[in-house]
Amino acid sequence: MIEIEARKEGASRTARLDAVFAALADPTRRAIIERLSRSEARVTEVAEPFPMSLNAVSKHIRVLELSGVVERHRKGRDHILSINTRSLDEVDGWIERTRHYWEKRLDAMERLLGELKKDRKLGPKDRKHGAR
Amino acid sequence: MIEIEARKEGASRTARLDAVFAALADPTRRAIIERLSRSEARVTEVAEPFPMSLNAVSKHIRVLELSGVVERHRKGRDHILSINTRSLDEVDGWIERTRHYWEKRLDAMERLLGELKKDRKLGPKDRKHGAR
Repeated sequence: MIEIEARKEGASRTARLDAVFAALADPTRRAIIERLSRSEARVTEVAEPFPMSLNAVSKHIRVLELSGVVERHRKGRDHILSINTRSLDEVDGWIERTRHYWEKRLDAMERLLGELKKDRKLGPKDRKHGAR
Repeated sequence: MIEIEARKEGASRTARLDAVFAALADPTRRAIIERLSRSEARVTEVAEPFPMSLNAVSKHIRVLELSGVVERHRKGRDHILSINTRSLDEVDGWIERTRHYWEKRLDAMERLLGELKKDRKLGPKDRKHGAR
């Protein structure tokens, strides 16, 4: 049972990452996120600066809502959009985990390079002085 | 001229971000990146753990190459794949810039909340003692 749940959780996290990355793969949608990261806003306010119909922007907003990046709530007559920061944290988490590996690799290469440089500068006799 | 160049540069950065995010919107392609973030590898090594044909994995690798996330060089007969870390840095940079805004917003909210809590705990007379 636990295993099935864990697999379900893994599967839904995978599906969420798919949806968030796909949502971010469009300049209009990224611009909407940038707008909403400054403050929440009404749909019409979000749409205003874009040189396209309200309908076209609404479709992009819908993709962002389905991916979980953008949330909508009603305030009287208005539909207010805001960012769900947790969804971007998940994406960031994936990049960080991946980055972790190569940074370790880069660190190791840097150390190796440092050692090699030291060895070239110093003759075998000088090495014990520990000069750079 | 400079403006045109700057616009071109901006346009190509936008296109790169589109391609990288689209490339990341697939679990097989993310798994390939995770594999390559540990070490560079031959195409056949990369394909081996996936329950699909070499041809199917090769298509995913091609998408990753076109997005600039993965690079290929030849070593004798072998095609060696590795990650181009700069491409993921660009993605990470975009997320960080966006995050910057909302973190400032969260900090401001937290400060406000702290102030409100203080005001509720202390009567007007107590406030000058500066107790929490």
